[in-house]
Amino acid sequence: MDLLVRTLAQIVPASAAATDAGRERLDTMTKPRGALGAVEGIAARLCGIAGHCPPPVPAPAAVAVFAGDHGVHARGVTPWPREVTAQMVANILDGGAVVNAFARQLEVTVRVVDVGVAATLAPRPGLVSRKVAPGTADMTVGPALTREQVVEAVEVGIEVAADLVAEGHRCLVSGDMGIANTTAAAALVCGFTGADPVSATGRGTGVDDETLDRKTAAVRRALELHGPDRTDALGVLAAFGGLEHAGIAGLVLGGAAAGVPVLLDGVNGGAAALAAAALAPDVLGYCLAGHRSTEPGHGLTLAYLGLPPVLDLAMRLGEGTGALLALPTLQAAARAMHDVATFDAAGVTDKNG
Amino acid sequence: MDLLVRTLAQIVPASAAATDAGRERLDTMTKPRGALGAVEGIAARLCGIAGHCPPPVPAPAAVAVFAGDHGVHARGVTPWPREVTAQMVANILDGGAVVNAFARQLEVTVRVVDVGVAATLAPRPGLVSRKVAPGTADMTVGPALTREQVVEAVEVGIEVAADLVAEGHRCLVSGDMGIANTTAAAALVCGFTGADPVSATGRGTGVDDETLDRKTAAVRRALELHGPDRTDALGVLAAFGGLEHAGIAGLVLGGAAAGVPVLLDGVNGGAAALAAAALAPDVLGYCLAGHRSTEPGHGLTLAYLGLPPVLDLAMRLGEGTGALLALPTLQAAARAMHDVATFDAAGVTDKNG
Repeated sequence: MDLLVRTLAQIVPASAAATDAGRERLDTMTKPRGALGAVEGIAARLCGIAGHCPPPVPAPAAVAVFAGDHGVHARGVTPWPREVTAQMVANILDGGAVVNAFARQLEVTVRVVDVGVAATLAPRPGLVSRKVAPGTADMTVGPALTREQVVEAVEVGIEVAADLVAEGHRCLVSGDMGIANTTAAAALVCGFTGADPVSATGRGTGVDDETLDRKTAAVRRALELHGPDRTDALGVLAAFGGLEHAGIAGLVLGGAAAGVPVLLDGVNGGAAALAAAALAPDVLGYCLAGHRSTEPGHGLTLAYLGLPPVLDLAMRLGEGTGALLALPTLQAAARAMHDVATFDAAGVTDKNG
Repeated sequence: MDLLVRTLAQIVPASAAATDAGRERLDTMTKPRGALGAVEGIAARLCGIAGHCPPPVPAPAAVAVFAGDHGVHARGVTPWPREVTAQMVANILDGGAVVNAFARQLEVTVRVVDVGVAATLAPRPGLVSRKVAPGTADMTVGPALTREQVVEAVEVGIEVAADLVAEGHRCLVSGDMGIANTTAAAALVCGFTGADPVSATGRGTGVDDETLDRKTAAVRRALELHGPDRTDALGVLAAFGGLEHAGIAGLVLGGAAAGVPVLLDGVNGGAAALAAAALAPDVLGYCLAGHRSTEPGHGLTLAYLGLPPVLDLAMRLGEGTGALLALPTLQAAARAMHDVATFDAAGVTDKNG
């Protein structure tokens, strides 16, 4: 608990002064005012996160893929066997998953964090072995986790963030791997936002109508069982899990404490950000939403958090893949703040000048 | 005219077989079917463009910024002085524009093509001096260009495409610089799609209500004057200009003839693609829309052409900036087609297997 408490104390609001300085700089750059649209908001926010203008280009970046299993899998919420979590972790460590291809192309480090896979994973390069439990308990019959387990997983995420920043990474990207984790994510979204399970529960990686009904029913049953108090973030995480959501919440806290941007992937990253923001609202100043997935709970979450997505490409893979595709936009936005000439310096006539 | 005719003869449809092979490969990759959303369509289209699967990663890329002035500037359609076109060309050549910052970050070559700037530009590295005329004539009182000028500008674009491909570039990005060119673009959009000027004319780089009224009126007057025949692409380009639109149309034709993807920027790239598609419908198989700008004619154009945008960030700068931000998504999509393991190879259980 010590690390969590210390980390919460380190989180300060992103700098409003630097954000304003970014906006002012954008208005002097050789382009019509506002012509970069949402990219201007990104650029200004990167200034706020860094605390100065222009902001550093958020590179190199690292994607941390938190992996865990889910007791709610037993409720038939997904057609994928539970074993696929460990199989896909091995695939990522072999470099064969989509996250690896994207990361290779975009020059991003991939780190896999076993925070709760229901199988023993041998040590391997790229794998951070910090298993808190071999999967969560079934949230429909009891708490998915104990509070102690939640704190432990959050602190794993904090440590992963600190390690990645210490290695020189200047942007942290959330990733996840966990069969059934969109069920836990839907419950977290409902628990933190008050949304109804029907509006927050989706087809995840592609479930049929019958499975979707079971999934929605499981989320509803868990909500009724636990009656979550959204002001008790650790309690909500304990009620529903998963360990990867707690880990990503820690990544968000650790990234914010270190003053680096945290680029969130889909609904699992969003659900984790809800938890992190419930612990420390100022973390939102450090979060950017890489994309909006097709999972309905994700759109709800981004609206609730006030985070506009960079991309909206109907992706629903997880692993950090959607966020990775948004990374070059952040990097280019920051670069523009350094490189673009002002009207005065370039001798370009400003219509508003 | 010879080069245009020869180029048109070289354009073949993108390969449906390779596109299908791409879709099949996507379904064997270690991810749920369809989970990459729109990125899967991009990956399959890159296969079709290359004629094989997996497709080459579209890198290195080059952005060709076609620059020109517009006689319709005299109608008060923009608050920016005409001189800004030449000033911004100089700024781009100095490396100080947003397109330069984005291109530097994304490792893209910038080439500026003076196809119609109303000022004498001294030769400089990075500048292709191929001025057809020092700006177009006012489309509201007569044709903006002669047919001969249109053909010459289109052929400049074809040659720029061929040169860039010969230099080893594997993706061509459209860019534009020309004060008042969104007025010409709106007229082209109306001429090719039949849209009404009110729905196709927008605020460009940010005009007030009064200027927008003048701009819309100028588009309407030009349409009434010329009564464009959308099956006569060269005639429509001659009626409205601009020289940069004709040049970009040539870039599209040349890119399609060379079998490389052409990544289109905003409304000016879209208007040029309308012209290119009217000359050779098969070019659309080689075009990808980098983004959707705020210019209403651009949304109309993308819907008409059936090209979904990668990004939708309310950008309205031009120069190729919106398209550049989409480039890493194309590159990552292609990379995934090479690198991602199949279910069988990775030993991952496929729920559909």
